[in-house]
Order: sequence, then C-alpha cells, then structure tokens
Amino acid sequence: MAKALALAQKGDGRTSPNPMVGCVIVKNGQIISEGYHEHVGGYHAERNALLHCAEDPAGADLYVTLEPCCHTGRTPPCTDIIIEKNIARVFVGALDVNPKVAGKGVKQLRDAGIEVITGILEDQCRKCNEVFEYYMTTHLPFVDAKYAMTLDGKIATVSGDSQWVSGEASRQAVHRLRRHYKGIMCGIGTVLSDDPMLNCRIANSIDPVRIVCDTHLRLPIDAALVQTASDIPMWVIAGPEADPDKKSVLEDCGVQVITCGLDKNGQIDLKQALRILADREIDGILLEGGSTLMGAAFKAHLVNKVHAFIAPKVIGGSGAPSPVGGTGVEKMSQAVQLRKMTLTSYDRDFCITGCPQYV
Amino acid sequence: MAKALALAQKGDGRTSPNPMVGCVIVKNGQIISEGYHEHVGGYHAERNALLHCAEDPAGADLYVTLEPCCHTGRTPPCTDIIIEKNIARVFVGALDVNPKVAGKGVKQLRDAGIEVITGILEDQCRKCNEVFEYYMTTHLPFVDAKYAMTLDGKIATVSGDSQWVSGEASRQAVHRLRRHYKGIMCGIGTVLSDDPMLNCRIANSIDPVRIVCDTHLRLPIDAALVQTASDIPMWVIAGPEADPDKKSVLEDCGVQVITCGLDKNGQIDLKQALRILADREIDGILLEGGSTLMGAAFKAHLVNKVHAFIAPKVIGGSGAPSPVGGTGVEKMSQAVQLRKMTLTSYDRDFCITGCPQYV
Ligand SMILES: NC(=O)c1ccc[n+]([C@@H]2O[C@H](COP(=O)([O-])OP(=O)(O)OC[C@H]3O[C@@H](n4cnc5c(N)ncnc54)[C@H](OP(=O)(O)O)[C@@H]3O)[C@@H](O)[C@H]2O)c1
Ligand SMILES: NC(=O)c1ccc[n+]([C@@H]2O[C@H](COP(=O)([O-])OP(=O)(O)OC[C@H]3O[C@@H](n4cnc5c(N)ncnc54)[C@H](OP(=O)(O)O)[C@@H]3O)[C@@H](O)[C@H]2O)c1
Repeated sequence: MAKALALAQKGDGRTSPNPMVGCVIVKNGQIISEGYHEHVGGYHAERNALLHCAEDPAGADLYVTLEPCCHTGRTPPCTDIIIEKNIARVFVGALDVNPKVAGKGVKQLRDAGIEVITGILEDQCRKCNEVFEYYMTTHLPFVDAKYAMTLDGKIATVSGDSQWVSGEASRQAVHRLRRHYKGIMCGIGTVLSDDPMLNCRIANSIDPVRIVCDTHLRLPIDAALVQTASDIPMWVIAGPEADPDKKSVLEDCGVQVITCGLDKNGQIDLKQALRILADREIDGILLEGGSTLMGAAFKAHLVNKVHAFIAPKVIGGSGAPSPVGGTGVEKMSQAVQLRKMTLTSYDRDFCITGCPQYV
Repeated sequence: MAKALALAQKGDGRTSPNPMVGCVIVKNGQIISEGYHEHVGGYHAERNALLHCAEDPAGADLYVTLEPCCHTGRTPPCTDIIIEKNIARVFVGALDVNPKVAGKGVKQLRDAGIEVITGILEDQCRKCNEVFEYYMTTHLPFVDAKYAMTLDGKIATVSGDSQWVSGEASRQAVHRLRRHYKGIMCGIGTVLSDDPMLNCRIANSIDPVRIVCDTHLRLPIDAALVQTASDIPMWVIAGPEADPDKKSVLEDCGVQVITCGLDKNGQIDLKQALRILADREIDGILLEGGSTLMGAAFKAHLVNKVHAFIAPKVIGGSGAPSPVGGTGVEKMSQAVQLRKMTLTSYDRDFCITGCPQYV
C-alpha cells in the first residue's frame, strides 16, 4: 500500500477535481503491475494497472489507495474490470466520500465474490486526498494558507521589503504547493505592492488558476498577472459595483471577471466567492496573502490548513507586517487552534503545518 | 564524557559565575567515582570526584568536561590533587577560556607525566558553558532573548491579551531557562502592562536577579517586583536624571537602583548597562521582553541566543504586537541571521532556538 501511495502522488497537480489514486497488483509475492491516475479524463489507477500486467492477473491481490469506483464518469467503472480480470482480493486504503461511490464500490466487489479488506494505511490514504475529500463533502475548495515569515513573525520589513524572507529550498517547496492546488489566491493589496506572477516554476507542471480578490477592480492592466492572462488562467473576483468599462478592458486581456456579493465590510464575501469557485471545479486553493485577506479568511473560518515557512532571521520593527492581519481576535482564548501539526525543514528554514479546528 | 556532561548539568543555576563542570573517574573499566561542581564556592568537579572514590584512584582515567584549573581561586587548584592522587590519564572536554587557566592546566598535568587527551565531545562541552565562555571573553553577560508567539507571529492580541500564548510544558521550560541564567530582564512597558513576578517556579532553585530597564523610574511601588524585592533580588536600571525621591522610596523597598548613561534616543544605553551588570557578576541574562526592549537589544547586537516558543494557534490582527519591535531594519537583506538552529517540541508547542550572527 505504501508503494501504491507513492504512485498516487505521481499524479499530483493533474488529477483535479479527481482524487490522486495509486494501485499495485501482486501475484505469488511478485508485483506484476502498477498504475496511478495520471490526469483527469485519463484511466483510473486500477484500470491502468490491470491493462499492463506482466502476467495474467487472475487470482492476484490488488492494492488501491481509494475505493474502486462503481459508476460511469469520465471513464467506465473500475469495479467491472476488477471483476472481469478475476482478481482474488482487493486491499483498499480509504473509502470514497463521493456519494456516487461511498461503500458501493466495495459492496459490488464483495457481491461478485471478491474478498475486500478496507482501511489499509487509511490515515495516509485519506490525507493524500484531503482536498478531494473536503471538496466532495462540502462543495467548497480546500484552502491552504501559506506564508513565509521571519523568526520574529514578520512577512516584510517596516519599509515593506519582502525579498526574500525564506530560502531557495522553501521557495521550491512553495512551487510544489502551487502545483498541488488547482487555484492560487491573493488580495489586490499584494498585487499592487509586489506585482507577482503566481505561476508554478516546475517543469511540465500545470499552473494553478490565479485568482485575485479585488472588490473595485483596482487591478492594473500592466500587472504581470494581466499581461500573462492569455497564457495562464487569471480570474478576478469583483464586487457587483465594479466599473464595467474596466471589466471589459480586463476581459479583452484574457482575464475572467467573476462577480460576487459583498460582506458586511463592503468587501468580497469570501464564502460566496469560494462557492462560485467550487462550481467552477476549483477544489483546492493555495492562499498566498496578503496579511489582510489572510485575516479575513481565518475570521470567516475558511482556512483548512496552514503552511508557515519560518526563516532563521530576525528583523524587528513594531510596524512590520505580520502574516495574518485584519481585525484579529480580542482574547487569546478565542485563538483559532491548530491540530495535526507537522514540521519539516527546508535547508535552513522550518515549515510548520497545521489544520485549524473551528469550534 | 557524556556521563560527565550530564553530571555537569546538575549544577545548572548554582555555579555562576563559575562554569558547570562534571567529572567521572574510571579504573579497570569501572566507574569508581563521579562529581560535579555543585555550587559557586563549593569544590570543583574533579576534587569532588577524587575525594569520594570507591577505591584508590591511582592509575585511573579521569574524564572532565572542562580543563582542570591550575590557580587558587575560591578553592585550591584541581591540577594539584589530580597529580597527588596519581591519575594516569586525563580526558578533557573543552579547554578553559579563563586566561588564568587557558591551556596551562593541561600543561601542568603533562609536565607531571600525566597523559592528557583533549577535545572529547568538545562542542557539547563548550555549549554547556556558552554563558561562562562568552562572559569570560567579552566581560558582557550572555543574553538569551525568549518569547512566546502564535504561529502567526504575535505575542498578544490586538487588545493586548497575552494569557496564555504557550502551553504548560513550554512555560515549565521557561522556568528552567530562568534557573539557568543569573539574571532576567524586561522593559518597564512589560511591568506596567503585565505586573510580572519574573521568578523561577522550580522547587529548590535560586531565583534570577530581576532587572528592569526604566529610564525615568516609572516603576510603581505596588508592582509585584517591588513588593517582593526584600525576598528576591530586584534591580532597576535608570537614567541619570531619574527622580531621586522615587529612587529613595524604591531603595527603601529593597530595590537596587543602578544609574546608567543614555543612548542617542534618550533611553538606557544597553551596552553600558550590560557592562555594569557584568561588573556585578551577572554572566547571563534571560531577556523576556517586551517587544520594544527586544528590538533595541537586537539593534545593538547584544542578543546571543533566541528562544522562540511557537504555539499552534492563529489570532490575526494587524495591530497585534510582535515579539521584536522597535524600529527594525529597512531591508530584508539587513536581517540578523541566526545559526546553530535547534528545534524542540513541548507538548503541542515548538521551540526554535538560534544564535544571531552579527556581521
Ligand atoms: N512574505 C509573504 O509570504 C507575503 C505574501 C504575500 C504578501 N506579502 C506582503 O503583504 C502586503 C500586502 O498585503 P495587504 O494586506 O496590503 O493586501 P492583501 O491582503 O493582498 O489585499 C487586501 C485587499 O484585498 C481586497 N479584498 C477583497 N475582498 C476582501 C476580503 N473579503 N477581505 C480582505 N480583503 C479583501 C481589499 O481591497 P478592496 O477592498 O479594494 O478589494 C483589501 O484591501 C505586501 O506588502 C506584500 O509584500 C507578503
Ligand atoms: N508573550 C510574551 O512573550 C511577552 C513577553 C513580554 C511582554 N509581552 C507584552 O509586551 C508588551 C510590553 O512591551 P513594550 O514593548 O510596551 O514594553 P517593554 O519593551 O517591556 O518596555 C519598553 C520600555 O522600556 C524602556 N526602556 C529603557 N531603556 C530602553 C532601551 N534602551 N530600549 C528600549 N526600551 C527601553 C522604555 O521606557 P522608558 O523610556 O520610560 O525607560 C520603553 O518604553 C505587553 O503588552 C506585554 O504583555 C509579551
């Protein structure tokens, strides 16, 4: 199953809105085939593995990270081919949360007389598809808030200089995150101050859809995001009152302008915006700032994961911006608690991750 | 030597301004005695070990974390007793940086025909006495800046609430730090807002000398620090213009008021203050904030180590205070870089430490 999980990861960044799935077929103690879900629209992991066996898979054991599907979607059901190929036993990592599958895949296999063992490395298999699982059950994109700060908690100096907080290895890890998520989001403040590209600089990877929250369409035409909009998808979420002329000009540049309602502060209603993005099959978003938008996203309980890169440096400055701004909480006891903490080091930086637990 | 190092640590908080030293004596593959420097004024580790051997130490091997002393200080030289007891070989961790010893201890032993092997676990032995080593070579106290922040880099909420940032296990670790250092320092801002005690809540430990930087003697008479000044040493560092009447009142309460020159901002000249503290045998200080004083200490390149406790929570708030304030640096490239990074976890918190490298 560990092998199947590693295979699943190979599809990272290409399967959305499908899950990443890996499959290994073992006969007489030998691996006779492997497969993974390579990209959306392509064959599922099980089918890929079953079609490329080194010998007849009849009587073999099949290990798959996610419950085999039993419905016809972009491709035919996997349960059919498993039964047809006379697999003896199926070991399943996680059950599928998709209501069209959810336990039915396992049942179909059992009904066909195949022995099915579930829950193998279940936690890891579920984690591998936390985005898919969240999206399927809530119809909201999974939001991962990522920031890079100094050890004294700052994302830029008092004068606003932010290049660079973290080291090369951390920045590469960020590009892997950008590959992992279908969308990447920031506030208009970040665009105006940093003019970022927000693309994924890993060869042969698909760039995330770039999404900017910009109530009044302040986005400049000469911004890098706009200038590259014909090559890399670029969406702006604007309020209902945004200037229609500016909208047309942006659309002429290839930018998609999405209209969204406002919250009580007169800014983009983030929950509604996420709902609209979910409708457009954005199942996961890397939220890259800035401070103000991060603050609003935490306040609205919309952040599902945090990636805090911490660089071994101190810059000081009571006016230097911190990663999560906005209005914040009044009492320390109202803090958003994180759980499932992990720690990784990237060269000289640390990266702490955690998942907010909203009460 | 690892055993000797562990023994050395047992003296933590009691040996200042002496180093912590541990010693193990081995004969025919058996440990026949152990000793450590228990408290300032008491016997050194070697003497303690040599006086309590299970059998005659003649011909034995002696392991000691620090070069044996060869001068008469508070106690007679250790080299004498090592020679007298006919030790065959001496294994030394670190050489002593005290100019009265520095290599001379080893030379005396060798001159007496004893085989001396130096540099055993040298890095750990030196680290064990980084405070002693820094104080001996610079005649300044070693300053350890400690703070507790949320994962989004804040030490309090926008309303100033800071109880509690970190968990119980971290707070216990802080008390071990307070035991480790001879002094503990904060700015008057922290006293006015938090009215802290700054004592060490570990049974049978010596409280650090509590030191407050307070240019204008704003320290209230009813502050916990002042009210307990007759039991736990409490020093205030004030400017030359501080009100003499207030000074007398504080002194009547048992507070020692130390007068110090001012820097160009009209606040306590921190370098001069540290020099005065060094004269008073304060070899190490735990700097516990607040934000403003931390900022000034980093800016003046006076911080030797950082202990950043990071709690798994996010509070947000662009106005919430961060651990290191003051004016800060302008460019990210001017950041104070840290090296020798370590990471420890305390229950659900992380603690990152590092040593500033000033260029
Ligand atoms: N080191 C790092 O990791 C990092 C990463 C990113 C940014 N940064 C820094 O962060 C700074 C920019 O941050 P910022 O806080 O000024 O800007 P920001 O968070 O990027 O953008 C804030 C703006 O987004 C718009 N917005 C729309 N809907 C919103 C909502 N529901 N909640 C909040 N904002 C909403 C608002 O403008 P409208 O009302 O006009 O729509 C708001 O002013 C820059 O200095 C940049 O260098 C650092
Ligand atoms: N979570 C934590 O770890 C933690 C720890 C400590 C404090 N805190 C929080 O920090 C806040 C207090 O911090 P703060 O920044 O206001 O106060 P602070 O740093 O404790 O004290 C600053 C004051 O110290 C005096 N000072 C004297 N010499 C100085 C020098 N050379 N440089 C700088 N200051 C000097 C100045 O007042 P004069 O000019 O009058 O002398 C200055 O205003 C509180 O909200 C507290 O809760 C949090």
